[in-house]
Amino acid sequence: MLSKIASRLLLNFLLSVVVIFCLPWYDTLGIRLSMAPFSILGVAIAIFLGFRNNACYARFNEARHLWGTLLISHRSLTRGLKTVLTDRPRQIRQIIDLQIAWANALRVTLRQQPLSPVLATLPESVSTQLARYQNPCNGLLMLMAQWLAEQQRSGALSDIIYTRFEQHLTDLAGIQAGCERIANTPLPFAYSLILHRTVYTFCALLPFALVNDLLYMTPLISVFISYTFVALDALAEELEDPFGMEDNDLALTAMCTSLEIDLREMDEDDNKPARLRPDSHYRLS
Amino acid sequence: MLSKIASRLLLNFLLSVVVIFCLPWYDTLGIRLSMAPFSILGVAIAIFLGFRNNACYARFNEARHLWGTLLISHRSLTRGLKTVLTDRPRQIRQIIDLQIAWANALRVTLRQQPLSPVLATLPESVSTQLARYQNPCNGLLMLMAQWLAEQQRSGALSDIIYTRFEQHLTDLAGIQAGCERIANTPLPFAYSLILHRTVYTFCALLPFALVNDLLYMTPLISVFISYTFVALDALAEELEDPFGMEDNDLALTAMCTSLEIDLREMDEDDNKPARLRPDSHYRLS
Amino acid sequence: MLSKIASRLLLNFLLSVVVIFCLPWYDTLGIRLSMAPFSILGVAIAIFLGFRNNACYARFNEARHLWGTLLISHRSLTRGLKTVLTDRPRQIRQIIDLQIAWANALRVTLRQQPLSPVLATLPESVSTQLARYQNPCNGLLMLMAQWLAEQQRSGALSDIIYTRFEQHLTDLAGIQAGCERIANTPLPFAYSLILHRTVYTFCALLPFALVNDLLYMTPLISVFISYTFVALDALAEELEDPFGMEDNDLALTAMCTSLEIDLREMDEDDNKPARLRPDSHYRLS
Amino acid sequence: MLSKIASRLLLNFLLSVVVIFCLPWYDTLGIRLSMAPFSILGVAIAIFLGFRNNACYARFNEARHLWGTLLISHRSLTRGLKTVLTDRPRQIRQIIDLQIAWANALRVTLRQQPLSPVLATLPESVSTQLARYQNPCNGLLMLMAQWLAEQQRSGALSDIIYTRFEQHLTDLAGIQAGCERIANTPLPFAYSLILHRTVYTFCALLPFALVNDLLYMTPLISVFISYTFVALDALAEELEDPFGMEDNDLALTAMCTSLEIDLREMDEDDNKPARLRPDSHYRLS
Amino acid sequence: MLSKIASRLLLNFLLSVVVIFCLPWYDTLGIRLSMAPFSILGVAIAIFLGFRNNACYARFNEARHLWGTLLISHRSLTRGLKTVLTDRPRQIRQIIDLQIAWANALRVTLRQQPLSPVLATLPESVSTQLARYQNPCNGLLMLMAQWLAEQQRSGALSDIIYTRFEQHLTDLAGIQAGCERIANTPLPFAYSLILHRTVYTFCALLPFALVNDLLYMTPLISVFISYTFVALDALAEELEDPFGMEDNDLALTAMCTSLEIDLREMDEDDNKPARLRPDSHYRLS
Repeated sequence: MLSKIASRLLLNFLLSVVVIFCLPWYDTLGIRLSMAPFSILGVAIAIFLGFRNNACYARFNEARHLWGTLLISHRSLTRGLKTVLTDRPRQIRQIIDLQIAWANALRVTLRQQPLSPVLATLPESVSTQLARYQNPCNGLLMLMAQWLAEQQRSGALSDIIYTRFEQHLTDLAGIQAGCERIANTPLPFAYSLILHRTVYTFCALLPFALVNDLLYMTPLISVFISYTFVALDALAEELEDPFGMEDNDLALTAMCTSLEIDLREMDEDDNKPARLRPDSHYRLS
Repeated sequence: MLSKIASRLLLNFLLSVVVIFCLPWYDTLGIRLSMAPFSILGVAIAIFLGFRNNACYARFNEARHLWGTLLISHRSLTRGLKTVLTDRPRQIRQIIDLQIAWANALRVTLRQQPLSPVLATLPESVSTQLARYQNPCNGLLMLMAQWLAEQQRSGALSDIIYTRFEQHLTDLAGIQAGCERIANTPLPFAYSLILHRTVYTFCALLPFALVNDLLYMTPLISVFISYTFVALDALAEELEDPFGMEDNDLALTAMCTSLEIDLREMDEDDNKPARLRPDSHYRLS
Repeated sequence: MLSKIASRLLLNFLLSVVVIFCLPWYDTLGIRLSMAPFSILGVAIAIFLGFRNNACYARFNEARHLWGTLLISHRSLTRGLKTVLTDRPRQIRQIIDLQIAWANALRVTLRQQPLSPVLATLPESVSTQLARYQNPCNGLLMLMAQWLAEQQRSGALSDIIYTRFEQHLTDLAGIQAGCERIANTPLPFAYSLILHRTVYTFCALLPFALVNDLLYMTPLISVFISYTFVALDALAEELEDPFGMEDNDLALTAMCTSLEIDLREMDEDDNKPARLRPDSHYRLS
Repeated sequence: MLSKIASRLLLNFLLSVVVIFCLPWYDTLGIRLSMAPFSILGVAIAIFLGFRNNACYARFNEARHLWGTLLISHRSLTRGLKTVLTDRPRQIRQIIDLQIAWANALRVTLRQQPLSPVLATLPESVSTQLARYQNPCNGLLMLMAQWLAEQQRSGALSDIIYTRFEQHLTDLAGIQAGCERIANTPLPFAYSLILHRTVYTFCALLPFALVNDLLYMTPLISVFISYTFVALDALAEELEDPFGMEDNDLALTAMCTSLEIDLREMDEDDNKPARLRPDSHYRLS
Repeated sequence: MLSKIASRLLLNFLLSVVVIFCLPWYDTLGIRLSMAPFSILGVAIAIFLGFRNNACYARFNEARHLWGTLLISHRSLTRGLKTVLTDRPRQIRQIIDLQIAWANALRVTLRQQPLSPVLATLPESVSTQLARYQNPCNGLLMLMAQWLAEQQRSGALSDIIYTRFEQHLTDLAGIQAGCERIANTPLPFAYSLILHRTVYTFCALLPFALVNDLLYMTPLISVFISYTFVALDALAEELEDPFGMEDNDLALTAMCTSLEIDLREMDEDDNKPARLRPDSHYRLS
């Protein structure tokens, strides 16, 4: 993020220097700018930028909430199955595999990465059945629902306990739909466009307005004001898509690994992955 | 959206030019405007505009949430029926047809389009029954509820599983009522009116206040400030009605198609529509 | 709403004219006002007014949501009863009459109108039972609950389906309590009082501050700034009580009629009212 | 509230008068204050005050919502019991007494008033059992739960209907915990402290900045600006604790009385209290 | 918190004094700063700081809500078990011990304190089983779920009542996931960074801009403005992590003790801890 901002601020600095050198010719050119209109603009842009930041942070926050709920639903489903179906450990391992695959499939779908590494963890019979689905998460949910309905038909789950567990699947469907909604419906494009335009025009005109009062201090103050506005504009842009792989995005891979550890532990299965650690830039992917 | 704004900005530009030419006569005419009152007004209008933007974006966002929940409820109902009633594929296809028709009927009702293309996809016996209803979605929901109650009466669904599925119908009723509420209760009209009036008066008076300080720069700055206010006012107007067919409105047709694909896939029915692609302006309808 | 605002703006205009005429005596009287303090005040008042608008709009919005949920609960209850109790059409007509009376009773209670026209639609045995209740909606809900419990006792409804339907009655109780809360707990009175006082004092002092800079333009700008503040103050006041009969209030009568049409249609009862149409001022009551 | 504000404003007025008299000595004393820094401060304080007002109003609003939900849960529990357990009127009167005592116990706990008047309304056997509990509401809820479980054990309530009614008790526990949270966790104290300090320092320095421009008008404008800030600060303080006995606090006693009337009416018990009326200051306690 | 702020303000004070002494050399050095750009910056920073305060307070508030819900779920589970399983007091004491350990384990996990004091309160058989889990709360929840499933298998709890109680465990899982989310996902780091930088640069440049107008008053006003901005920045930082041990953090230990008292009282167990009292700084840990 800093590199994007840095280049913009450098441009602003250079423009400010040029503006200082051209000052003697301004009267001839008819260039006259005072601070008063910039004061109005500055407040208006700050208010609108604050609004966009709010909306983008709300998207980021909702995405984080959804993945938090994902953890709850999976843990609760496994906890329920392990305590009620104590005599079917083999079948439970099957559905736990499906649950982990579902979380990973959601992750790669949201990040538009290839699905094949996720499918490779599943038995071939399962991946064949999934081939029919354009939406693999929907397919995996169908398989989990079939597994659950089989337990109910076989009498291992009463209707009441079946509907209780089935509720977790509906919750997962809700999480999936929520994530798809955030990924597919960006903030109305016009917001970003209008704000980008006004922020950049504002910063570009700023040195002309400052130079009369500040002279040699123009570059310093112009770059400082520009930094405040440009940095918050850039941050909002990044938060808008919380499922990407950039600096401030959600650590979906770490969450999927953490979920796998939790479920394997509940299943007394020692075949569990190592917890992801932040990389040298303190980032989790 | 841009054409609407462009004409307003052109007007503002022309007014600014006229204002520059008339400057020598201002003292005679008693026209004296300074920036100070505009500074107060600018902040106040920006705050109120920010409030309206918030409210309009909340409408847009709620509409998007409702359609996201619509996807969940329909997918979950189909998933539940397919896994529990494994021996009644023919009846399940009937209710899937009703579900898809319901989503399409909601779409055309919200967009005030004719209902006939939706009814044409249903068997005649069904469309005759629907004729009685002023609100076709309500009628379709009644038919789905009758289908579900028949399965329960025939003993295929226990009371517990029946109420579980019936909950999805209540959720659909909630989605329908939510969409109707958004479509039928606009933001109190007075908000738009007060803000339109103040924004336009503000922009029209602006050149008179700027001309003393800025002289030939007046058109540039006047158009820039006007752009910031007018563009955000216009965007709020567009977001206010999220079910329309304009630039930033929801892609209801694409969502209905996507729902149909999902349900057909779950039903192992290859007779499914092609996914909608954005048109040459990157728009989905 | 406009007439209230217009008289205030006229006052402001007249005051501005007086202020211009008295200008030569100001030095003698020691009257000196500059724009700087008004700039601080303007922003502060705009922020506080924005806060009140938010709170009032939230009340309006919640009221609208509650009435939307009212529609869902009633439609869902009728849909459930019609599909499950297919052999008791006569009894179902009884409860539909109670449901419609409940909605109308809530409407007249919130608007502090007489209850007698609503009671007149009910059989005498019912209205006698209602006489005991200070809160008629609470009484009607009790009668609906008795009706439902009788169906369960007679064996027509299993316990599970009974509790499912009973949930709709609890939802209705929640809607009623929510509406009563909005109607009985206005925004803390001090908010309105503090804001009214500051807005009016601000507008009254404004011409004195503007006259030095603007002279003959004072009335125009003073009225324009006052309009922005007074109009938003007046609108917030109106939205605060969403159940009234004023311009921007909720169309409760239209919603009750629409509910009656929906329920009658579901009951295949042709004895339904005509849909309400907006009056000549585009208003629904 | 007004008396607190009035004394602060009087102080501000007197200070302004002193400031006018001392004006001739300012140059000697090196006192130089202009409006520009106050303009920055004014906006910043208004924004932060707006934030605190929002947070305090949210507390007030949540408290009001919780007491609204309290009404729903109690009415719904009584409605359910009266319609299902038609043959146990004596036992139902017992639980209604517990319900009313619970609401009153919550009221006096929140207001830190003595509990004895509430206990006096209960049979001695009950108040003995309550003696064990530091938290009387928790004890009363336990007694209600025991009552309900006894009905289930005696076969009068099926498991399904029992869990349905038990849900109302869990809702009441939620309301109680919510009220305790609001009462025990004030807004972080530092907020109030920082804002009080800045508001008072701002108001105290204001006359020094205004006096150069306004001279004899200083007291008027200084008091007016101070009023805007001090009044909103004082109001936020009052809303922060919605369970007190001050002007803008919730009318808990009136709500408890109203609940008792509703429950007694549903129980056909004529021994009900009179509805509370506002006192001579239009206040309900 | 005050010590951190105090050192920053002292620095600002010293800088202001230096600035006054260097004033005569400014023209030579080309240092020219006016208030106008600081006015724009001040408003923008205040708006962005307001936004961060909002987000941080929302985290604090959500954390408080989660711990409030934790109280409800535990109390309701114990109330349910005590009233339904009246003949199994010994087993109920076991699960109450697990519940209290769960709350304490969550507390020490969130505060990154050692788990051993919590484990020491449990029988050895239990702590051995917990050793398998990286996440001890998840392990304790599993044990509670096993306890509950055993009661159901033994016939003491019907399926319906079992699922009712199991819901409380799912709620606890949700509370745990919510707290983990708040602890592990701080506000995007860039927000804090951007705001810290702008706030400190703003305060450092302020004396240069003020000195021309205010001369000897510069330190007073500069420190006052800096206080407003720095104090709110510091407070937001503290609220961001509500689970710490600093001044404005949540009193998790007091809440755990209070929960233990409530559960022991419901279990008629006199072996309960003393309620925590605030320390000499009015703080609860």
